Amino acid sequence: MANEAARRLMARLDEFGGFTDEPGKLTRLYLSPAYARACERFVEWAREAGLAAYIDAVGNVRARYEGRRPNAPALMIGSHIDTVRDAGRYDGNLGALAALSIVEMLIERRERLDFAIEIAAFGDEEGVRFPTTMTGSRAVAGVLDPTAFAAKDREGVKLGDALTAFGGSPLAWREAEARDVAAFVELHIEQGPVLEREGLAVGTVTAINGATRLEILVTGHAGHAGSVPMPLRRDALTAAAEMILAIEARAARAPDLVATVGQMEARPGAVNVIPGAARFSIDIRSPSEPRRKTAVADIVASLREIAERRKVEIAVRATHEAPAFVCDPRIVAGFDAAAQAVGEPVFHLPSGAGHDSMILGRRWPAGMLFVRCQGGISHNPLESITTADCETALAVLFAFVKDFRLA
Amino acid sequence: MANEAARRLMARLDEFGGFTDEPGKLTRLYLSPAYARACERFVEWAREAGLAAYIDAVGNVRARYEGRRPNAPALMIGSHIDTVRDAGRYDGNLGALAALSIVEMLIERRERLDFAIEIAAFGDEEGVRFPTTMTGSRAVAGVLDPTAFAAKDREGVKLGDALTAFGGSPLAWREAEARDVAAFVELHIEQGPVLEREGLAVGTVTAINGATRLEILVTGHAGHAGSVPMPLRRDALTAAAEMILAIEARAARAPDLVATVGQMEARPGAVNVIPGAARFSIDIRSPSEPRRKTAVADIVASLREIAERRKVEIAVRATHEAPAFVCDPRIVAGFDAAAQAVGEPVFHLPSGAGHDSMILGRRWPAGMLFVRCQGGISHNPLESITTADCETALAVLFAFVKDFRLA
Repeated sequence: MANEAARRLMARLDEFGGFTDEPGKLTRLYLSPAYARACERFVEWAREAGLAAYIDAVGNVRARYEGRRPNAPALMIGSHIDTVRDAGRYDGNLGALAALSIVEMLIERRERLDFAIEIAAFGDEEGVRFPTTMTGSRAVAGVLDPTAFAAKDREGVKLGDALTAFGGSPLAWREAEARDVAAFVELHIEQGPVLEREGLAVGTVTAINGATRLEILVTGHAGHAGSVPMPLRRDALTAAAEMILAIEARAARAPDLVATVGQMEARPGAVNVIPGAARFSIDIRSPSEPRRKTAVADIVASLREIAERRKVEIAVRATHEAPAFVCDPRIVAGFDAAAQAVGEPVFHLPSGAGHDSMILGRRWPAGMLFVRCQGGISHNPLESITTADCETALAVLFAFVKDFRLA
Repeated sequence: MANEAARRLMARLDEFGGFTDEPGKLTRLYLSPAYARACERFVEWAREAGLAAYIDAVGNVRARYEGRRPNAPALMIGSHIDTVRDAGRYDGNLGALAALSIVEMLIERRERLDFAIEIAAFGDEEGVRFPTTMTGSRAVAGVLDPTAFAAKDREGVKLGDALTAFGGSPLAWREAEARDVAAFVELHIEQGPVLEREGLAVGTVTAINGATRLEILVTGHAGHAGSVPMPLRRDALTAAAEMILAIEARAARAPDLVATVGQMEARPGAVNVIPGAARFSIDIRSPSEPRRKTAVADIVASLREIAERRKVEIAVRATHEAPAFVCDPRIVAGFDAAAQAVGEPVFHLPSGAGHDSMILGRRWPAGMLFVRCQGGISHNPLESITTADCETALAVLFAFVKDFRLA
């Protein structure tokens, strides 16, 4: 039965991958024509299953499978259906469509539960089109800041106007707010290589990493590459190189801590000029707040030490700070039990990326299940999962749902 | 007397600094309107001094001060009068106008020598406008490759057409070739900090560094900055950082060797993506051919070792190779003696940058005298020298000329 459900889910993900605004690749930004077509198809499938389904005021797909008694509190299941540019077809979409699969599995068994199931397919998780993020889940959780509707995309279109044109309503965003939700759970591809390395199909997410982003500007002294002897140099780039290695070494010393220098620029950037300035970004993440904060302090201190020793100036600017989100322990325990129930080992891992769960988790108990993705590749057309892993993930999620109890 | 000459030379350099194609900064590219005005002014000054002066077929200013007997072999003195964009006023111009100062000092003393003095103010030393370099001195030395005239500037104008419009003649470039030259000497700002650090006004150049330029492409594995644990990464940028430090350390171990990473790029270059690729340039220079070649081999070997250890790929591409030019030992000795004659310490240093001397040195004995510049700054409006140092440099150059003997 799960086999049939997994095959159908994979086929739907393939079809969904065709809803794109850029022919030849998958790009489905929030509120775009392709996003609208995907929403309509989702509603169609949900209605075919016999559910009440609609697109809400901020452009999320919503559907409800009632419990044994009407108006029971709901377990919300879902993820997002917007994508990055040139995306893979599983990020977000898997969890959103899997929610429908779970309900279909219950319908096939003619089974009603003590609670309703709310299916939610969110928009704007990726935050690619507008300088906003998670608009859909923020509205559902009732934590949206309506100034977000004034944000403009790169063509100058306001989010509020795009939403109105889409058929939504910025003024009525509160209509999208969910009521009487018991908990939220999300199935998502891992977007990292840990499950693959462990040889596991699924893992229980314990926390979503908190993140600190810094921008570092190193200022030395530019000079002629041929005529300034090595001991007289104040090379901003070699100083930055030493800093990058110190960052890497510090991150490697702590468990569940990652630090990344993703952007790097040397100025003036000529082959025959000693760099007078270097600019780079640092992204530091951990599921543990104290571990992240200690690492940030240690890294900044070591950067200052290197700068002083090399006689260059350093300026440190914080550009982003997001606290870690700890998954609800009852949901973590529920996924662990569900994994064991279907014969899968219990495995815990943090999430390096942000997800809708951390928004819904501000209001309701929330948690996540990760499924293995090939090579840890994500945000890329090469993103892939196997049908067998999809089957396992559906089985674990189904076991979780069947065993879920209202508090 | 030298004092008066130095003041006049400094005033001329100030006036020359006004010949620019970009108001508010000094930019005087080869064959531009400002370059033409500078050439005409130079000819005017030379004629005022009583010399036969003209602009040659490739746009160099040429002037001749005859020796005691007509048609004697000439000591050629000069440098270039084109500049980089947003240049300082001393690079090149100092040496070109100093040649005129030396002749004026002889004229004031009513002194003729056993040899003629040829003054040469070259164009295209900087190689900024066209993808060529040293066109002026190549023509004078008779080593020009005429295919250079087909090179185009960024507006698509061919060098040959620009030269014709300027009043020169690409077909007649051989008319610019000098005959019966005994030697070439060039006064130039150091463009480095060595003389300043040593507390010296002038130094004798022993050699112009040979240079090897490499372009390095490191390929690792891109990934999500939050979800790939440190031990599973193949980060191209941290590998490149280790390589940059290895290059710096290797260069610091050898005397008279410099190595510079001036260009650096991390791809894809997003704050939240582990760099999958990094590209950087290396510029390695030394006055010693074997020392440079050993260093290049050592550096490439250590880069490969780092790449292998970090499980990233490396591609090494040679982009430029220029042999070192050793200054003529008689000219080196002549400058040493001249320094001593005017009470200056003898000091030897290599030139990190390329100069017209290395072109003229292919045909005739050639050598250079460096003068201290403030902070080693060059190719920058802050480039400066003192009138006192200018006076010392003129005195040493004058002593050299007075003592110069035909072989």
